[in-house]
Amino acid sequence: MAQTPIFIDNLQYANYSPDLFDEMAEAGLSAVHVTICYHENFRQTVENIISWNRHIAAHPDRLMFGRTASDVQAAHASGRTAIFYGLQNCSPMEDDIGLIEILHQLGVRFMQLSYNNQSLLATGCYEAEDPGLTRFGRQAIAEMNRVGLVVDMSHSSERSSFEAIEVSNRPITITHANPDWWHPARRNKSDALIRALTQAGGMIGFSLYPHHLKDGSACTLNSFAEMVAEAASRYGAEHLGIGSDLCQNQPDSVVEWMRNGRWSLERDFGEGSAANSGFPPQPDWFAGIRDFPNIAVGLSAVGFSADEIAAIMGLNWLRFYDQNFGPSSDQLR
Amino acid sequence: MAQTPIFIDNLQYANYSPDLFDEMAEAGLSAVHVTICYHENFRQTVENIISWNRHIAAHPDRLMFGRTASDVQAAHASGRTAIFYGLQNCSPMEDDIGLIEILHQLGVRFMQLSYNNQSLLATGCYEAEDPGLTRFGRQAIAEMNRVGLVVDMSHSSERSSFEAIEVSNRPITITHANPDWWHPARRNKSDALIRALTQAGGMIGFSLYPHHLKDGSACTLNSFAEMVAEAASRYGAEHLGIGSDLCQNQPDSVVEWMRNGRWSLERDFGEGSAANSGFPPQPDWFAGIRDFPNIAVGLSAVGFSADEIAAIMGLNWLRFYDQNFGPSSDQLR
Repeated sequence: MAQTPIFIDNLQYANYSPDLFDEMAEAGLSAVHVTICYHENFRQTVENIISWNRHIAAHPDRLMFGRTASDVQAAHASGRTAIFYGLQNCSPMEDDIGLIEILHQLGVRFMQLSYNNQSLLATGCYEAEDPGLTRFGRQAIAEMNRVGLVVDMSHSSERSSFEAIEVSNRPITITHANPDWWHPARRNKSDALIRALTQAGGMIGFSLYPHHLKDGSACTLNSFAEMVAEAASRYGAEHLGIGSDLCQNQPDSVVEWMRNGRWSLERDFGEGSAANSGFPPQPDWFAGIRDFPNIAVGLSAVGFSADEIAAIMGLNWLRFYDQNFGPSSDQLR
Repeated sequence: MAQTPIFIDNLQYANYSPDLFDEMAEAGLSAVHVTICYHENFRQTVENIISWNRHIAAHPDRLMFGRTASDVQAAHASGRTAIFYGLQNCSPMEDDIGLIEILHQLGVRFMQLSYNNQSLLATGCYEAEDPGLTRFGRQAIAEMNRVGLVVDMSHSSERSSFEAIEVSNRPITITHANPDWWHPARRNKSDALIRALTQAGGMIGFSLYPHHLKDGSACTLNSFAEMVAEAASRYGAEHLGIGSDLCQNQPDSVVEWMRNGRWSLERDFGEGSAANSGFPPQPDWFAGIRDFPNIAVGLSAVGFSADEIAAIMGLNWLRFYDQNFGPSSDQLR
């Protein structure tokens, strides 16, 4: 058996190239959940999937397609990284509930029900009102549960997130956000929400995106690790993981697309501002993919055990993948 | 000058064929606003536009393309019917504010901001919660105002409708609904809403769809005409017109598409029920397009003047078209 740990980064949107695949190997990442859509429709998302399928085909020494937890173990055993596809918006399913199963067949394993704005399914965290899940949203969650497409509420509103936890008959996730008791921010989550999420078997992935960090780009590894320790005491270490939200090497035009899509004639600055409209610099201890192991160093320094560190750095996500990426057990009966 | 009146039916979704174009001529309809989409996306809507363009090209003796109020007058002068395109949902603009102008260029003159369900722009009248316009919805209305694409709130929620009236800097419309003080129904509108709509210069088109009628299919012409008379006394006859919502010759599969689109795995019965799931029969005095003039007879019997009848049967819509189908005057300056 391999002696190295299984590391999983459960949310990245880097500008991928062969040198970043080398960094994945250097960091010992056995799995990465990569975002393949922010505002794209179905056809455009299929194009993005094709692009990623070609990356994987072109780099068989570094990458493999991730569909199940056992793919993570196979990647780990062969020193590669299993790539899992995820959607930060429900735009790829358009208005068609039948596309949920199709997207799962194409390898998609996570889908956010909304991205900042109101969607057909749920409210986003930037809307003035928070009416919760729509009629369509309730049906979509049932269908996602059936096929094994995980509900992600990272960019959704508080009420929609509570309702998704309640309506879903399988655990859901917030792949990339931090607690607002550590750093108040529109995208960070309340204690009550993280508690409800984790008590229902869900996972939260902690974000390394500077707008989600206390002190932003100047956040220290120790501050981050102490936040994780406090979260472990509140919610249990078994529900915690990493979803770095790393946008390594992306030009600022990408953050403009994330924030404005095709919906806005004005310019929306999201978590930034007119004076600070681009990607903020990463903290020096997490400048890129290769720094992933630094998080384990930080967790060790604040007193986590080796088993807890292994869980938070990857094994919790591995368990979650194992339980949630296949058809529901109702289906199997 | 032609001596016949200008009749306009400002909402139909019939299963069109040459015999119905003959009925339009027989009824003396100078303009019909036809629905070309319920749940279709942009590409599918373009296909529907192509189909309609071909109808118009194939029947130059009966039909002409309607883009402006003067097209109605040209149609009237030549004994034809000008066909205006409208959308009962915002699905054709997908998530792209740039498609609003494109749709207008293709001849679309009305667009509902939502159809029963929550959309990206506004809430539908069948949702449990009514949060009003979304961030995107507010921007979309401004763009619709700019190009001259009229906001229609027939299938939207009450709060979204009030907010659309307030946010829009041009008059908006409810093309096909009746007052709920005459017949309480999910799709009929409150006194306060119709008052706000008309006070802002907007128009309501009265519906002949049986689920919107007092006593349903057994509704009498007199009851309908008395409702119009009461509405005239409350809101002013100059804001009233007809939007019959006639679905002549449509199979029941069409009402299933309207209600369920692609979003539902369950079966939604909308205004109907499991026991009454299809299109209800029309009242005998409005069985089809050729019966349009009967409404004028009914209005006359309850005491409307000839001028008022001419206004309600067509001239009010003609004035509304004239003022609202072009670019906003801000643009022209």
